[in-house]
Amino acid sequence: MGRMILPLCPHPHVSLSSYSTLPLKQISIRKIRNSVRALSITPFEMEQPMRGRALMEFPHLLAPHKDLMVGLISALDKRLHRHLLPSSATVPPEAEYYQNQSGASQGSLCINRGIDFILASWLRLSSPTGAMNITNIQGYLKSSTDAPHFQFELVQCSPTYFIFFLDLIPRKDLVLNPDYLKTFYEDSQLEALRKQLGTQVLEAKPYFSSSLYFRNVVSPTGIVVSITCEDGGTAGRAEEIIRDNIEPIANEVLEIWMDSCVCKGGTTTAGENERDQLEKRDRMIKSRAIEMDLSSSMPIQFGQEVADRVLGIIRGVFRL
Amino acid sequence: MGRMILPLCPHPHVSLSSYSTLPLKQISIRKIRNSVRALSITPFEMEQPMRGRALMEFPHLLAPHKDLMVGLISALDKRLHRHLLPSSATVPPEAEYYQNQSGASQGSLCINRGIDFILASWLRLSSPTGAMNITNIQGYLKSSTDAPHFQFELVQCSPTYFIFFLDLIPRKDLVLNPDYLKTFYEDSQLEALRKQLGTQVLEAKPYFSSSLYFRNVVSPTGIVVSITCEDGGTAGRAEEIIRDNIEPIANEVLEIWMDSCVCKGGTTTAGENERDQLEKRDRMIKSRAIEMDLSSSMPIQFGQEVADRVLGIIRGVFRL
Repeated sequence: MGRMILPLCPHPHVSLSSYSTLPLKQISIRKIRNSVRALSITPFEMEQPMRGRALMEFPHLLAPHKDLMVGLISALDKRLHRHLLPSSATVPPEAEYYQNQSGASQGSLCINRGIDFILASWLRLSSPTGAMNITNIQGYLKSSTDAPHFQFELVQCSPTYFIFFLDLIPRKDLVLNPDYLKTFYEDSQLEALRKQLGTQVLEAKPYFSSSLYFRNVVSPTGIVVSITCEDGGTAGRAEEIIRDNIEPIANEVLEIWMDSCVCKGGTTTAGENERDQLEKRDRMIKSRAIEMDLSSSMPIQFGQEVADRVLGIIRGVFRL
Repeated sequence: MGRMILPLCPHPHVSLSSYSTLPLKQISIRKIRNSVRALSITPFEMEQPMRGRALMEFPHLLAPHKDLMVGLISALDKRLHRHLLPSSATVPPEAEYYQNQSGASQGSLCINRGIDFILASWLRLSSPTGAMNITNIQGYLKSSTDAPHFQFELVQCSPTYFIFFLDLIPRKDLVLNPDYLKTFYEDSQLEALRKQLGTQVLEAKPYFSSSLYFRNVVSPTGIVVSITCEDGGTAGRAEEIIRDNIEPIANEVLEIWMDSCVCKGGTTTAGENERDQLEKRDRMIKSRAIEMDLSSSMPIQFGQEVADRVLGIIRGVFRL
């Protein structure tokens, strides 16, 4: 099936370096402020402040979890930076980092528009049983291509319990579109990578989301697993799994997405009708994602004002 | 969402008893012939020979597996017999029971047209490691309703290893049709039944079909599990699981299908375009099912002539 090479970036000549002298975003808790002050600004960061440091700090994660996040974001930057706008063009400082009144719940949001957009975030949520760390990277493409979106989420529920979700999200009904299935899934390494995790990490069990809708959004090669490490309550084994097993697979899936979806574009699409359908489907997925993940938990964790502010920005980018 | 009460049967007044005097189908191996001769014909069978005895014998199954099959088919008969035609109207004797030259591979096929059709079958396939028994019941509805199809398959790969598949197959893209998801899946007991099996049978593990296409056909509440019983190579635990856990769940899902899908009909559907789409999707699923399950294995197991005969009948009913 023919593939269209699609123009990637609507603003190919935006000089990102012009953003390098922007003042540091206002970051409101001392811990992060101090960390940021202590950071040495590297030449790379001087050239490409694609996102605020509140994101890249990942202050609460296990070291291999932070390394993984920084690695994925760096890989996106390296390959796509010419096609992305800095997050500051979309996310104001008060949403780049936010917290609740006590500071027990914190979050950071970063959105780079361009390809359609890349959203990266971390959330630390307080819970009666301890804190939970959610890290997330989503790559959404425009409706000029039907190529899958990218989804990565690693949720550290406790030092020994993780949920890991990694997928290229189909944008068409795969039952009705076997050529699409073949192009992006059957002819790719995605299934081999999904199996690899199962073989390497015996603690990984298929995870069934409580949302039946979400289960249907995931592709047949999507990785949705929970990982419980029996390790005397320490995070040693969890760190090992993230570093040795999750990181290489996440890196490879991201490369596949950038190679086969962002750079090559989609399958040959028909006229306006099909594009309307694609946009409708994309909108349904996004609106359900917000409804399911955020609209109820954000106000509880952060209060209505902060929740409205952050969700307002995400809804704007999601065109909801 | 409104539901349409759809007329079920195009031939509501066919007198099924008129078929009760048909000669017994020619059954070509001695073992089955003898079993059939030994059968006492009950009044129920006299009145309703909905299918040949080659099917209902289930000659190679563990006792609880046979009981389960007979129970499911009896439940279908009890509820739907007024809406179904006898299998002899569709399946000639030489396809009702068939075997390969040595008799090591055997099969039985039964198709009752009406609702659109119910297909029930068993297959005993020889393999280097022993025989494999596949039992299957599929309930397909017409395109005048969009209500899900019924799928049951229990594959006994060895005395201690089973694969179990039970689902109401969605006929629409659930991502684009959340109302459909709500009506048939979220508002039903299907998810509770799926969970029940996982809780009751610790040996049941999610099974990933090697066909990415098939994975996408299954609904989010579909049960697709493999069950390995560590029981010293005997079938004791497997028999227990089939009788105590699989049978009640299969019965309930079949009741849900007959209540909510066959008798109540589908969600309100729009015009001709939507019906075309539904038919196209149904056809894709059926053609992939034949391609995946049967078109390669049937000629190997039964020879080209038998395979052509049996597959020809199935393709005809599937309208492929």
